[in-house]
Amino acid sequence: VVRRLAQADSALAHVFAFHHLQIATVLLWGSAAQQSLLARTVSEGWFWGNALNPLDARLVATRVADGWRLNGAKSYASGSVGADRLVVSATVPKADGTAARLVGHLDAKAAGLHVREDWESFGQRQTDSGTVSFDGVFLADADVFQGPDDVPTPRATLRTLVSQLTMANLYLGIALGAFEAARGYTLERSRPWVGSDAKRAVDEPYIQHRYGELWLLVRAAELAADAAAPRLQAALDAGEELTAGQRGEVAIVVSEAKVLGHRAAVEVSSQLFELTGAGATSGRLGLDRFWRNARVHTLHDPVDLKLRDIGRFRLEGRLPEPGSYS
Amino acid sequence: VVRRLAQADSALAHVFAFHHLQIATVLLWGSAAQQSLLARTVSEGWFWGNALNPLDARLVATRVADGWRLNGAKSYASGSVGADRLVVSATVPKADGTAARLVGHLDAKAAGLHVREDWESFGQRQTDSGTVSFDGVFLADADVFQGPDDVPTPRATLRTLVSQLTMANLYLGIALGAFEAARGYTLERSRPWVGSDAKRAVDEPYIQHRYGELWLLVRAAELAADAAAPRLQAALDAGEELTAGQRGEVAIVVSEAKVLGHRAAVEVSSQLFELTGAGATSGRLGLDRFWRNARVHTLHDPVDLKLRDIGRFRLEGRLPEPGSYS
Amino acid sequence: VVRRLAQADSALAHVFAFHHLQIATVLLWGSAAQQSLLARTVSEGWFWGNALNPLDARLVATRVADGWRLNGAKSYASGSVGADRLVVSATVPKADGTAARLVGHLDAKAAGLHVREDWESFGQRQTDSGTVSFDGVFLADADVFQGPDDVPTPRATLRTLVSQLTMANLYLGIALGAFEAARGYTLERSRPWVGSDAKRAVDEPYIQHRYGELWLLVRAAELAADAAAPRLQAALDAGEELTAGQRGEVAIVVSEAKVLGHRAAVEVSSQLFELTGAGATSGRLGLDRFWRNARVHTLHDPVDLKLRDIGRFRLEGRLPEPGSYS
Amino acid sequence: VVRRLAQADSALAHVFAFHHLQIATVLLWGSAAQQSLLARTVSEGWFWGNALNPLDARLVATRVADGWRLNGAKSYASGSVGADRLVVSATVPKADGTAARLVGHLDAKAAGLHVREDWESFGQRQTDSGTVSFDGVFLADADVFQGPDDVPTPRATLRTLVSQLTMANLYLGIALGAFEAARGYTLERSRPWVGSDAKRAVDEPYIQHRYGELWLLVRAAELAADAAAPRLQAALDAGEELTAGQRGEVAIVVSEAKVLGHRAAVEVSSQLFELTGAGATSGRLGLDRFWRNARVHTLHDPVDLKLRDIGRFRLEGRLPEPGSYS
Repeated sequence: VVRRLAQADSALAHVFAFHHLQIATVLLWGSAAQQSLLARTVSEGWFWGNALNPLDARLVATRVADGWRLNGAKSYASGSVGADRLVVSATVPKADGTAARLVGHLDAKAAGLHVREDWESFGQRQTDSGTVSFDGVFLADADVFQGPDDVPTPRATLRTLVSQLTMANLYLGIALGAFEAARGYTLERSRPWVGSDAKRAVDEPYIQHRYGELWLLVRAAELAADAAAPRLQAALDAGEELTAGQRGEVAIVVSEAKVLGHRAAVEVSSQLFELTGAGATSGRLGLDRFWRNARVHTLHDPVDLKLRDIGRFRLEGRLPEPGSYS
Repeated sequence: VVRRLAQADSALAHVFAFHHLQIATVLLWGSAAQQSLLARTVSEGWFWGNALNPLDARLVATRVADGWRLNGAKSYASGSVGADRLVVSATVPKADGTAARLVGHLDAKAAGLHVREDWESFGQRQTDSGTVSFDGVFLADADVFQGPDDVPTPRATLRTLVSQLTMANLYLGIALGAFEAARGYTLERSRPWVGSDAKRAVDEPYIQHRYGELWLLVRAAELAADAAAPRLQAALDAGEELTAGQRGEVAIVVSEAKVLGHRAAVEVSSQLFELTGAGATSGRLGLDRFWRNARVHTLHDPVDLKLRDIGRFRLEGRLPEPGSYS
Repeated sequence: VVRRLAQADSALAHVFAFHHLQIATVLLWGSAAQQSLLARTVSEGWFWGNALNPLDARLVATRVADGWRLNGAKSYASGSVGADRLVVSATVPKADGTAARLVGHLDAKAAGLHVREDWESFGQRQTDSGTVSFDGVFLADADVFQGPDDVPTPRATLRTLVSQLTMANLYLGIALGAFEAARGYTLERSRPWVGSDAKRAVDEPYIQHRYGELWLLVRAAELAADAAAPRLQAALDAGEELTAGQRGEVAIVVSEAKVLGHRAAVEVSSQLFELTGAGATSGRLGLDRFWRNARVHTLHDPVDLKLRDIGRFRLEGRLPEPGSYS
Repeated sequence: VVRRLAQADSALAHVFAFHHLQIATVLLWGSAAQQSLLARTVSEGWFWGNALNPLDARLVATRVADGWRLNGAKSYASGSVGADRLVVSATVPKADGTAARLVGHLDAKAAGLHVREDWESFGQRQTDSGTVSFDGVFLADADVFQGPDDVPTPRATLRTLVSQLTMANLYLGIALGAFEAARGYTLERSRPWVGSDAKRAVDEPYIQHRYGELWLLVRAAELAADAAAPRLQAALDAGEELTAGQRGEVAIVVSEAKVLGHRAAVEVSSQLFELTGAGATSGRLGLDRFWRNARVHTLHDPVDLKLRDIGRFRLEGRLPEPGSYS
């Protein structure tokens, strides 16, 4: 679904996907009592956003009676604008100078919580990924998913893989959308090349060849995403029986899909213009949106570290350490 | 099976695969009566070879009573050395100056038929792909699979796709074998790089990254080959119901697997040396055999035309014309 | 100069370069009498634009006493907005149904001539490349550079090579500008990668390696552009002695520079984001402008035909036919 | 000269180049008295080889009266078979457990010195790069170029750059030779492709395009090698005035040439077969020798570290540390 949505509108797909990712968070991290959030999400029509950016350490949690007091801010909070409910992470400073992490959920209208509509990247423009500021916001113990001393089980760490595979499908959707847009332009508008014998643009040998090349990028990403999905589902189905080794192998398969999706999205969206010509750069058509969206979204975490992780696994069977990105 | 064989020994896999391809020829092109060849293959332990190279037009068939008289030669006759039975194609000149094709099968010890062990390419050295010469060899009408006036049904043209997917798996097997050989060398023999901080070769960031990159080439080829197989099987199962459109779509999926397998084989077998270093070029190890085998075998038909066919299909839904290579 | 300008501002460089290209047109195509335009350009401070797009055949010239009457329009007229003087080409229909080309120059404020500020591509936004419409504009015979029956000498066809090498330098300038912008961001703002050992982004092995890779793209383009310039100058210096063969060899050297510049511009401007991370996609920084400008400008004529021309020359010594793009 | 030799025969070029590299060693490392070796080289017609492999630490030097006693072996000793004179390096163990390096020259027929003709890599087969064993060989103090306590001046470290640029030209020569061999085959032997409209192989659009692509690899390497040569010559001319900074910048320019030469050699020699077809893999033609030679020789030191060095320099102006490979 994310893939098909992204094909049409990658920002909409982004928001939709992150809503479902927060629901997956309830499933994976919520206690038995917290599972009731799922029913409330349906009955009250909640839209979920997040304020989880692990690279932004400004949001600090301080222990108070029955809960925590949150002060600071989180950037890149996808889906926070207009959300009803937010999954939030905060830093808990420890006595030894290191820091632990606290994750919980909050009403988006909680006292002291403000969502700023300040997203201004050149892509994924309608993702509502603003900055959320916290001014003494109270997080009750009952609303905590992971406390600073909780050690996540392999199953709990699947949340990262749900997030990563969602992104792989989103990238793939962008690639598919760009491919189709280029194709439509070539079929309907492209003129034959000056200096070539082909009578129609679609008969030009180099245009046919480049479509073949770009399609193989899309196809490889599609096959890898489709291969990763049942592997992740099986891991989810295994529940708390899931071992670290099984989890790690799924992480690798998801990484394969993510790297191939990344490449397909960036390359198809940039190279499509060789196939369409200068007329396709008209601002009215907006065909640059695929590259802008792909480029902004594929920077979530470095593709080179994914390639490294895949290489390490293939060389020595070494598994990536579960974290915010792997 | 071909893929696994090719991983260990791509020449053996080649001969094995072409034996089975000839058996597929009996299945797809043989009349009801000719299907009995299958039982005889089992009972007499026949090994099948071919003399089918469509680019070599030297072998000419002349009509005689009850059959054809064959004179000339066929090069690149894979599996012909040591074969019991050969599938053979010959040119039939027509009155209007064009030529038609005749395909049938022959006893490898037929009078006038000589198999020369003259294969001398720098790769696939044990494939027994010699030249077969014909000096007035008689081919009985009962042993003809396709006469000069036969128009093949879509089902009959699946033979090319069986051949192409076999090659895709063979290339993939070479890529897998090269990958494993490189990995084994890196783990057991490679020394850390001078001028780098990594204490072991496997800890070198660039080595890990390159293994990740090469693996993705292998992985994409593997996924595409695995996706093509059930599509081809379904087409075979459809029998004479198979339409030209259905056949064409399978041809495209097989082409995807073949191009990705081609790339994986050539790239992994050449780039692996960046990962192992100069010691791996020792003639005793023979690690150049992967590149030599990949390079020789991937030239069966031009990869650029496959990319063109894929592009044409994606652009306009145009299907490749059934022939010896598509 | 164009290269350095483009590094800072590729649209400014574009306008500046096209002004000089029109002056080169006077030098190469102008009669002895028309060379006085050069002195007038200096004394009256003329800024030159063009309405020459060879793909737009809408502008038609009809013979009248002492000159031609122009009706129609030309799109992609770089530098036309705000120009004092325009180089203009028009189609002259011939009796046999084919068409010839007429080139001359006009006062930008000539009666019936209107420059529309309608450029709306997603890149090269300040290039003033609008559409020019002609409503019965009179072009005097004295202002014609090339009449419909003139056959250009090899020297005259150097204008295309001046244009192509200008573009090669423009692309290179975009690549250099993108490289520097990425470098500045990495040095000043990038944070070390989560999951990597490097303490600073600039110490990350993969970041160093990618900068090395991107630099080689820039470097190859730079060397090729610097090698082409003296070759083109020598051809210009040869004057009417220049042979078609000498001209063709310069065309190839210029094509090498153009293809390498094209690649450097598109790849550096897109891949730089792998090196900087998500923060660099902020709209405030505008780092997407390099890709947008590179992408729009590199579509001037198909890169695949340049590669074909280089291949043809290397294979058989075949020279590209002089035309609007080669 | 090396480049032209390598085009015809890369093993001959290798031996020739390494002879001259040893002569450069006398120039750069020899004392005033040792410069007389140059005159003796001419008068006695000496051919120089080496036993310098810095990765092989088996050869150990022990201090004796008036010189050193050498025991052990050196592998990859290019040009040692048939040499008159050898440049030799040995390890000198130090009291603190570390090791220093000693470099000097020896008569190839010195007592206890044995050159084994045991080179058995799959490429560069005639390079006479055997193993040299030392059984108590005496090296007089007068024949020492660099003692274990000598700190090389920037000028002395130019020897590595002479060696690296020699290799860059050698790789380029292989690429040029492979390109020409492919071209000759395509022109004289290639048949048009089945399934394509082109009547001659040289008219096939994809063949023309690939020749264009491969040529650009060769061209970039050629331009970079030609740009590096005068930079290195200027550094040599600067003599002991040469600063570490100037030396480092030359190292980077040489690295650019080496990486581009490496790529051209490996890619052209492997991809040429897409242009020629299966017939070109005949063992009689030996067209695989280009890849085998390129592959073996380009593993001298890791290309990834050169890319890293170029990236570091471009990012922060950091210069590579002078050593055996940079």
